[in-house]
Amino acid sequence: MRKLTINVKPPYDVIVGSGLLGGAGKLISRVMRGTKALIVSDSNTAPLYGKMIASSLKSEGLDVYMHIFEAGEKNKTVKTVWDMLEAAASYGLTRSDAIIALGGGVTGDMAGFAAAVYLRGIDYIQIPTTVIAQSDSSVGGKTGCDLTYGKNLAGAFKQPRLVIIDPDTLSTLPHRYKSDGMAEIIKHGLIASPELFDIIERGSLDMDDVLYRNVDIKRSFVEADEFDTSERMKLNFGHTMGHAIEKYYNFTGPSHGEAVAMGMVIAAKAGESAGLTKKGTAERICSVLKQYKLPTATEAPADKLIDIAALDKKRMGDIINFILISDIGHAFIHKLRAAELSDFLQGAF
Amino acid sequence: MRKLTINVKPPYDVIVGSGLLGGAGKLISRVMRGTKALIVSDSNTAPLYGKMIASSLKSEGLDVYMHIFEAGEKNKTVKTVWDMLEAAASYGLTRSDAIIALGGGVTGDMAGFAAAVYLRGIDYIQIPTTVIAQSDSSVGGKTGCDLTYGKNLAGAFKQPRLVIIDPDTLSTLPHRYKSDGMAEIIKHGLIASPELFDIIERGSLDMDDVLYRNVDIKRSFVEADEFDTSERMKLNFGHTMGHAIEKYYNFTGPSHGEAVAMGMVIAAKAGESAGLTKKGTAERICSVLKQYKLPTATEAPADKLIDIAALDKKRMGDIINFILISDIGHAFIHKLRAAELSDFLQGAF
Repeated sequence: MRKLTINVKPPYDVIVGSGLLGGAGKLISRVMRGTKALIVSDSNTAPLYGKMIASSLKSEGLDVYMHIFEAGEKNKTVKTVWDMLEAAASYGLTRSDAIIALGGGVTGDMAGFAAAVYLRGIDYIQIPTTVIAQSDSSVGGKTGCDLTYGKNLAGAFKQPRLVIIDPDTLSTLPHRYKSDGMAEIIKHGLIASPELFDIIERGSLDMDDVLYRNVDIKRSFVEADEFDTSERMKLNFGHTMGHAIEKYYNFTGPSHGEAVAMGMVIAAKAGESAGLTKKGTAERICSVLKQYKLPTATEAPADKLIDIAALDKKRMGDIINFILISDIGHAFIHKLRAAELSDFLQGAF
Repeated sequence: MRKLTINVKPPYDVIVGSGLLGGAGKLISRVMRGTKALIVSDSNTAPLYGKMIASSLKSEGLDVYMHIFEAGEKNKTVKTVWDMLEAAASYGLTRSDAIIALGGGVTGDMAGFAAAVYLRGIDYIQIPTTVIAQSDSSVGGKTGCDLTYGKNLAGAFKQPRLVIIDPDTLSTLPHRYKSDGMAEIIKHGLIASPELFDIIERGSLDMDDVLYRNVDIKRSFVEADEFDTSERMKLNFGHTMGHAIEKYYNFTGPSHGEAVAMGMVIAAKAGESAGLTKKGTAERICSVLKQYKLPTATEAPADKLIDIAALDKKRMGDIINFILISDIGHAFIHKLRAAELSDFLQGAF
């Protein structure tokens, strides 16, 4: 068991270790100010770990309630968050009580959002159970849900009170979910840690160690830029085009991680063409992606993807903060206008 | 035209003056970072001032959009806020754009909440048009909406970027709304300003001056305690029992201000009985309330109201922060357990 502290206001701990889940109650009760804990989980995760967490909390003398919503990215809506809020109110949660988010990124994002707005903010605790949530989304306080017009358009910055990461939960994941999460881990290596990238290249990963390193990388970005206005944007490496790919398939094609994988290759190739990225980087990325059964190129037409990305970004202001890497482990922000995107990506597909 | 600055992070101005509405565009454009302004208003207020504000903004070169929701306390729901969020997204509002809340407290609370969570937070500007919103709710950053289980259970602390108060709008209000708002103004005098209370007692109010004084009182509480954990609770004078009265009639009986008026009398009588409030205070309050056509006593049964208040507070933690005044202009927090409420209020009805 290893511990990291995220130094924001107020600071909070991320605890990483195999087998932590059974003792989650003890860890959580240490940070609880009130007596009521509402576990929020999805219909996939709740049957696996719901009872274990609930009884662990009960044995610490807490009043435990459970709210389960239907699993799936398509349920990442205001309606699902609203249901969580009504559940919290129906159980009479007070300002000193807490919500426990048990599940993947969708669960953590929405349960965190509910905690951010219930009574104008109560504590929440993250128990992420997927690679992507354990390596990335459970840390940093970005919470939210989708609107009809796009992903994650509603939300709040609300840091958790505690994050408990138990890599044992990954054994219950379908294979595709593991690969999916590996894309973000590879991304962390590419933008911030040549050492992590080497470990990933060597293979046969010690997940306790890998997740700890990932949280540590995420920590450094969150501490430098809690509200995502500068440094933290580097975490979007591969995401501009990755997001366009997801959107092209209306979010029913490649998973988020798969799309980010392809997006990272496009960004590396574009960087190499522009002389901004070290030659051979894209090839090295492709080889690692293949190793983890992630795709390296999309079949979606380049011009369509560029149109989607340009339109998407135009709506959010004309300047695109396109993230590039100069070399493995070194990211930087490359600013360009939406109209310049097509030229910049010429030959990157 | 007079200006007050609310010193929170970041600070913002409240501008008070008759006839300000026609020039709202100029005032707003000074604080706008982006180019798009979404006016959010209800079906009562939009027909009165919507066009004026929109054209004033347009003449400053801003892109103006309008979202109108059905007026009424019963529409203060997550669904109404959700519609505002979808509207903001449909018009492509970016992080640097702003929402303009045009209307009473319900409008300001929800439009502010929408601004707090759209893209995890964009600016909003308050243009309050009722006494209660101009004297109280438009300043201080408490935003939110109701849940099935109670009033204002979802929300965020999100300070506006600017507040524009034009007392001329009060001339279009139905009489009952004016009395309703006067209750909060009387409350401000009772908890913080003997001078304001004297002015109110004398009658024939100069609303420009009265509203300025009210905002100044609200300012002092907000600056001392932005997140409502201590000093700011004094603004709840009359609200514990007022809220119970509203609830007894299922929010279809006395208006909020009327209920607060009766709640203040109960609090003063209880304080006098307990030797905590100067003798004669309740009588002085009653006489002012009558002057402004506000009720001084409820017909709802005392035991039922006490049950409601005790249950209500029990759900939010056992300790009740009951606000009392020692004398006109001097409030303090009197802590008591829910079980002690009945004894404390003996003879206060």
